[in-house]
Amino acid sequence: MIGGEALVRSLVASGCDVVFGNPGTSEMHFVATLDAVPEMRGVLALFEGVATGAADGYARMREGPAAVLLHLGPGLGNGLANLHNARRSRVPVVAIVGDHATYHQQYDAPLESDIETVARNVSPWIRRSATAAAAGADAAAAVAAAVGPPGQVATLILPADVSWSDGGSVAEPVRRVERGVVPASTVERVAGILRSGARTTLLLGGGAVRAAGLRAAARIAAATGAGLLAETFPARMERGAGIPAVERLAYLAEMAMMQLDGTRHLVLVDTTAPVSFFAYPGKPSNLVPDGCEVSVLAGGGDDASAALEALAAAVGSGAAPAAAPTSRPGRPSGALGADTIAQAIGHLLPEGAIVSDEANTSGTFLPGLTSGSPPHDWLTLTGGAIGQGLPVAVGAAVACPERPVLALEADGSALYTLQSLWTMAREQLDVTTVIFSNRRYAILRMELARVGATASGERALRMLDIAPPEIDFVSLAQGLGVPAVRPDSAEAFADALERAFAEPGPHLIDAVVPSLF
Amino acid sequence: MIGGEALVRSLVASGCDVVFGNPGTSEMHFVATLDAVPEMRGVLALFEGVATGAADGYARMREGPAAVLLHLGPGLGNGLANLHNARRSRVPVVAIVGDHATYHQQYDAPLESDIETVARNVSPWIRRSATAAAAGADAAAAVAAAVGPPGQVATLILPADVSWSDGGSVAEPVRRVERGVVPASTVERVAGILRSGARTTLLLGGGAVRAAGLRAAARIAAATGAGLLAETFPARMERGAGIPAVERLAYLAEMAMMQLDGTRHLVLVDTTAPVSFFAYPGKPSNLVPDGCEVSVLAGGGDDASAALEALAAAVGSGAAPAAAPTSRPGRPSGALGADTIAQAIGHLLPEGAIVSDEANTSGTFLPGLTSGSPPHDWLTLTGGAIGQGLPVAVGAAVACPERPVLALEADGSALYTLQSLWTMAREQLDVTTVIFSNRRYAILRMELARVGATASGERALRMLDIAPPEIDFVSLAQGLGVPAVRPDSAEAFADALERAFAEPGPHLIDAVVPSLF
Repeated sequence: MIGGEALVRSLVASGCDVVFGNPGTSEMHFVATLDAVPEMRGVLALFEGVATGAADGYARMREGPAAVLLHLGPGLGNGLANLHNARRSRVPVVAIVGDHATYHQQYDAPLESDIETVARNVSPWIRRSATAAAAGADAAAAVAAAVGPPGQVATLILPADVSWSDGGSVAEPVRRVERGVVPASTVERVAGILRSGARTTLLLGGGAVRAAGLRAAARIAAATGAGLLAETFPARMERGAGIPAVERLAYLAEMAMMQLDGTRHLVLVDTTAPVSFFAYPGKPSNLVPDGCEVSVLAGGGDDASAALEALAAAVGSGAAPAAAPTSRPGRPSGALGADTIAQAIGHLLPEGAIVSDEANTSGTFLPGLTSGSPPHDWLTLTGGAIGQGLPVAVGAAVACPERPVLALEADGSALYTLQSLWTMAREQLDVTTVIFSNRRYAILRMELARVGATASGERALRMLDIAPPEIDFVSLAQGLGVPAVRPDSAEAFADALERAFAEPGPHLIDAVVPSLF
Repeated sequence: MIGGEALVRSLVASGCDVVFGNPGTSEMHFVATLDAVPEMRGVLALFEGVATGAADGYARMREGPAAVLLHLGPGLGNGLANLHNARRSRVPVVAIVGDHATYHQQYDAPLESDIETVARNVSPWIRRSATAAAAGADAAAAVAAAVGPPGQVATLILPADVSWSDGGSVAEPVRRVERGVVPASTVERVAGILRSGARTTLLLGGGAVRAAGLRAAARIAAATGAGLLAETFPARMERGAGIPAVERLAYLAEMAMMQLDGTRHLVLVDTTAPVSFFAYPGKPSNLVPDGCEVSVLAGGGDDASAALEALAAAVGSGAAPAAAPTSRPGRPSGALGADTIAQAIGHLLPEGAIVSDEANTSGTFLPGLTSGSPPHDWLTLTGGAIGQGLPVAVGAAVACPERPVLALEADGSALYTLQSLWTMAREQLDVTTVIFSNRRYAILRMELARVGATASGERALRMLDIAPPEIDFVSLAQGLGVPAVRPDSAEAFADALERAFAEPGPHLIDAVVPSLF
């Protein structure tokens, strides 16, 4: 068995059975193996940033490892931004990076590059497979490193001759490592804080913002009066009717500081202490209020939900507060805007929907207007590198073919990885994409003032506006094989959204909206 | 003066007066400066890979430094592949990478990353600007490093607070360093080889494939019987009627070995010894024939053209051979294919055109059918990382607004950085783009067999084909503001090409062609 086949079979054996990728010559033996190993599904992306973002989305929803296949240093570079996001999502992604044959690297051929150096930024685990005999075991080791817990990006560099040489063997499946149990002493310490009566806020992230964790947190809050907040950009948050609604910490530092104002104890549950997204002249970076003490209930490798259950028991909480019933806003009418779009989404969001949210400034009204919709998952831009929403939608749809996916995309961000639409069309993924076409990098318009760059004029603003020329997302979507419409009112938008949810396969709605900034 | 303004003014003072970019919050003060410093032109790209490739194309044609503005590690990552290509082009590119404020980096905010690590792969020179007072001098040092000679990518990391703080001052302009003069002893040694009568081939690259160098080389060849070859992927080659035609070394190792067969002395002129692009089982990576001796006439920092003139004098060459007159192929007719398209281009290519060639397999017929067209520049995919052709066309058109630019793009490669079309539309660049829509990664179809991955079947081939669904480049171009047509015959293609050349501004022709592989 050649090394490439041993590697692919070992990935499959360890539960990694989808590979997103854009292969090149050095990966041809991996690709050829797809016919011999039908258990491995290959999903082609037209750009590596789509493949890496899809792996992130897949891992978030599958709760298992995703594989991505990349072509040397430049291919890894193209996928780096979404691997950065995946790192922040703390999900398991195995990046297989093809390289020149071992003996070819000395010649500095055009595509030669230092793959380890590129990978280091996003991938704590990096290994170069040295022989075909080792390839299978290396693949299993990569999966083991990726799944953690916590999940991370693991990079396995695969020289072409390792892939094409004989002598490979399939590795034993990786044994699943359970998340850590938080010690009783830690639970008791936090319970003591809660019992003290000092104003306490639980900041929930990672596994704590899934339904079970949120329910336990709500019981704690009811019993102790503690405040609850979710991290600003959760990888996957369960929400909607029947799930306790927990506000996310705001992106804007000023608003986040208001949310945290008065807190004497901040308890971190599978997340990190809050910091400002960017620095602003004269404003603090650290958002923990002065004099507030920070404690950790559960870290990245811990079972956060179990820790919250234990804490709920320790503080003697009763049953969960009554869950809010489904409560949708009415069907919107009038002008199309970020508000009426959010209303239409809240009105129509199907039960079990997966929302990939990269709406940025246009998403302002979404949390409020969808909180009473039937239960759904909400996936956010974890690492701040734009161009993540459409690829994450691709991966989520591959992971959960039976669930509708809604991608909410700012126009500027959509254009980073628009090739995602083609993969949606090829794989006939049930993804409805809404483009918020406000025709500018609106967030930069806002940030320009916040950083005090007030002397800006026409030439500066031209670098923040993406029109003229106006971008026609209907044309773009159709060019990539996705049917698309551009409604001109809130009613027409709601009709289009309803049709898109009703029909299988991908759809795009180009919503031209006024910018909020 | 704030550091950002000192930096921008220092760039301008040293001849770096165009910046391609996609800025974010940390670059807002740089952007705001564009109004205070109108000498700096900002060109917005919708994706960083467009910006970095445009900088490469600009530097190739301007023969001066290009600047590119990127947003932290992920923005640099998005631009990395085309910086890899720029590194191989050996052109001066100053990459300004905005970073968090110095005091903010400790907080590991979502976009925090190790920018130096990402940059290291493509940029031998990396500096982090530490204070506003140093920013101007740092910018000048970056330009000096970038221009060399030889040119290279120089990365200047600019923390947000360095940019927004007062205390900056404008640096003195960088003094131009002339290329090195090759020692007489080196010229004489190579002349001795040529006089020896042993079969000798001059392999020309870099500055040696400009008109003056090619003319000197032709005189040497005429006087000594030496063979001439150009490197496979020159950054900028002058060619066409009146310029000695020199064949490029083939991409396929088997063909390159035939071109070099029998050579006893290989003389490198501003290029490196030939190696196979990829490794193939059982085939050599080093393409220098057994027993052939390799000598260097001129290296990367040398004046290659002057070295060739000196060599021509040393071997007592006479006047240049008579230059071939313009000799265009006739207007094509019949079916549309890679051959008839090349014929139409040869028939119509305007004098002074700049051709950005990423036609890949579909470009097979181009060299032969355009060699007698009026003089023009030919820019190739120097580093092998696809998605370079459209951005390079953008940069070339910005550098040379008076010259027509022709971008020849394989469909698969075009989709990597298609956002280039929008910048062509916004800046109204005179670029005609021809998409060779063969609807597959044809080169991988060819490579699959060459690497011996013969067991591949339908599932493997599906990873190499980019249809279904078929991509409609007319829709895509129109969506990005570029008028486009899809001719259905060679005649219609020639008509469309003629119209596109005649009208200013960008145009796209979607040429659906049979794949050659």
